[in-house]
Amino acid sequence: MIPGPIEFDPAVLREMGKPTTSHLDPWFMEQFGQALERMREVFMSPSGQPFIVAGTGTLAMDMAGANLIEPGDRALVVNTGYFGDRFGALMERYGAQVDHVRAEVGDMPALEQVEAALRSHSYKLVTVTQVDTSTGVLADVKGVAALARQYGALAVVDGVCSVAGEELRMDEWGVDLALTASQKAVGAPPGLALVVAGPRALEAWRKRKTPVCNYYADFGNWLPIMEAYEARKPAYFGTPAVNLVAALNVSLGQILAEGMEARIARHRKLSDACKAGVTALGLRQLPREHCRAHTMTAPYYPEGVDASLVGKIGAAGVIVAGGLHPACRAQYFRIGHMGAHTPADILAVMGALESALAASGYAFEHGAGVAAAQKVFLS
Amino acid sequence: MIPGPIEFDPAVLREMGKPTTSHLDPWFMEQFGQALERMREVFMSPSGQPFIVAGTGTLAMDMAGANLIEPGDRALVVNTGYFGDRFGALMERYGAQVDHVRAEVGDMPALEQVEAALRSHSYKLVTVTQVDTSTGVLADVKGVAALARQYGALAVVDGVCSVAGEELRMDEWGVDLALTASQKAVGAPPGLALVVAGPRALEAWRKRKTPVCNYYADFGNWLPIMEAYEARKPAYFGTPAVNLVAALNVSLGQILAEGMEARIARHRKLSDACKAGVTALGLRQLPREHCRAHTMTAPYYPEGVDASLVGKIGAAGVIVAGGLHPACRAQYFRIGHMGAHTPADILAVMGALESALAASGYAFEHGAGVAAAQKVFLS
Repeated sequence: MIPGPIEFDPAVLREMGKPTTSHLDPWFMEQFGQALERMREVFMSPSGQPFIVAGTGTLAMDMAGANLIEPGDRALVVNTGYFGDRFGALMERYGAQVDHVRAEVGDMPALEQVEAALRSHSYKLVTVTQVDTSTGVLADVKGVAALARQYGALAVVDGVCSVAGEELRMDEWGVDLALTASQKAVGAPPGLALVVAGPRALEAWRKRKTPVCNYYADFGNWLPIMEAYEARKPAYFGTPAVNLVAALNVSLGQILAEGMEARIARHRKLSDACKAGVTALGLRQLPREHCRAHTMTAPYYPEGVDASLVGKIGAAGVIVAGGLHPACRAQYFRIGHMGAHTPADILAVMGALESALAASGYAFEHGAGVAAAQKVFLS
Repeated sequence: MIPGPIEFDPAVLREMGKPTTSHLDPWFMEQFGQALERMREVFMSPSGQPFIVAGTGTLAMDMAGANLIEPGDRALVVNTGYFGDRFGALMERYGAQVDHVRAEVGDMPALEQVEAALRSHSYKLVTVTQVDTSTGVLADVKGVAALARQYGALAVVDGVCSVAGEELRMDEWGVDLALTASQKAVGAPPGLALVVAGPRALEAWRKRKTPVCNYYADFGNWLPIMEAYEARKPAYFGTPAVNLVAALNVSLGQILAEGMEARIARHRKLSDACKAGVTALGLRQLPREHCRAHTMTAPYYPEGVDASLVGKIGAAGVIVAGGLHPACRAQYFRIGHMGAHTPADILAVMGALESALAASGYAFEHGAGVAAAQKVFLS
């Protein structure tokens, strides 16, 4: 129960272990083509162009930055943590002048702040991390995208810890590019960078005056390949990660079989239950109440308990993650609940957390956490 | 039997399908650390720094180009086909002035030509594709590296279709950087870019005056991660492709259990047998006799037979690949024989090839191919 790599469905893992076919095998062309089609549905972007490329979520960010930024462009980062800093550094590498709109750790910048920045300069694009994995802050992507559109900037969403878990309606909300990685809510083992670029993002790339200063990330190298595979035709730029792409296709199929609305609702329910449980145990959370992710929960250690709690939760049978944000790494831990999780998983987390808290000498009403979580499931 | 993805050992595939652990799990840290140590042995580079990064072989090339080239640098490509062209285009992307030393398709440039180029200009680096997958030409890496050293240039080897199959002694031959991809002779499914950078390459990177214009490929982001994992310590830049890295480690372990000398000798034997078989059937080969790879064989279709032969070989039970080089794509096909192959596999290829040739109405002495191959194995 960490915020990625998540636990994967047995059918997805079975696909991983099958003998690797040629990347031009008709069976594989069908898997790849279908995965591309399914990505459009999962990202809720009928107008978008999907890319599936061997790499990490950082490569997906790099594909956005390298293709959309030209030297001298101005970019705005709606910063809610570690990954906002990373997007800023990455765009500077390609010659952008980057401004950050920040909030306190655990909060998100107000839309008024974002609008003030957009009014003060002309930005080519605005990036926003929908869920910053370092803090569990959920940003207002819909609001940011609307402002970006209003001020003529591209809206770029880092959805690594959100796509297929949080509500993200690319086309409806006017998001121009969204990205994620395979090992998060999309539900396949790590190793694939996933990007969907809308028409305005592709147009901005086509209108570049300078070549993309990154050979591997260049849309120009991958676009013909993605178009070919979607047409079930052979094409080659780099050898696709055959097993991973086939496993991704299995997972995307499961996601669409569940249905995007039902899936988003399930993630909300799991999140509400988890958060109710930690609150009932007297634990505060890092993200403020108005901006809490539904794909993860980030509780502070209670008074008198330190980071050794993570090991104790592990000893009680559930693996969670420690803190990541440099400013407060030792003060909180992180529970991931994205993907194929069920109420039973959340109750297991609560049970292990209660055991670990008891072992730490922390005083609380035993059973309060699991009861509060269960109450949400039965509501 | 295509030149990648190759067939993978069942133990490697079993590793692929295991539940994914956290990238910071002690078990995984051990797998990653061990894989890095083993890479040094497989690349025969005790002094080298290995990198294992989620991506394709092209990403490995990009890591070489992006980190070693600065705008205005001059680079020389010893060009034996499609992948030499790619290396040139890639380095131009980072601002290099690139010269190519070329030979006719199927041949390799003479060392005299390479030396003449090195004498005429001062080059920062020389790239050479050890085996160009498009043509099956084996270049004289030892000779090129010695010349590069003599003229003060870095020697960069694209070993995608050669590392762990062909003889490549990085340190002994003075190769400064070599790279490959997981799905070739290294024997793990596609999705990992593998690079070993020697001290002179790292020094050139450290002495850069300009930042690396590629965020994802930047040695600076990955070096601390590789050093940490080799010390079995946790570190994060991008989430490693856990299943692939663990599978790679299984394969590297098998390679070292066989022993590098024995493995190189086995590839030579398999190659000699395959080439003797196609010759006995009257098929000429694309690469000239003095520069034929041992990891693949590239026969021309005989007179009166066209590219439909590939499908007929497939119908007879063995999958081979069509041509790739733009200049003569429809005139030849490609048999891969790298990795865990045995004499039985080569005999199976010969059998299927004979069946397909017979079905194409081509006149030859039935059994001559398998007999010639078997003769090599018994010699």
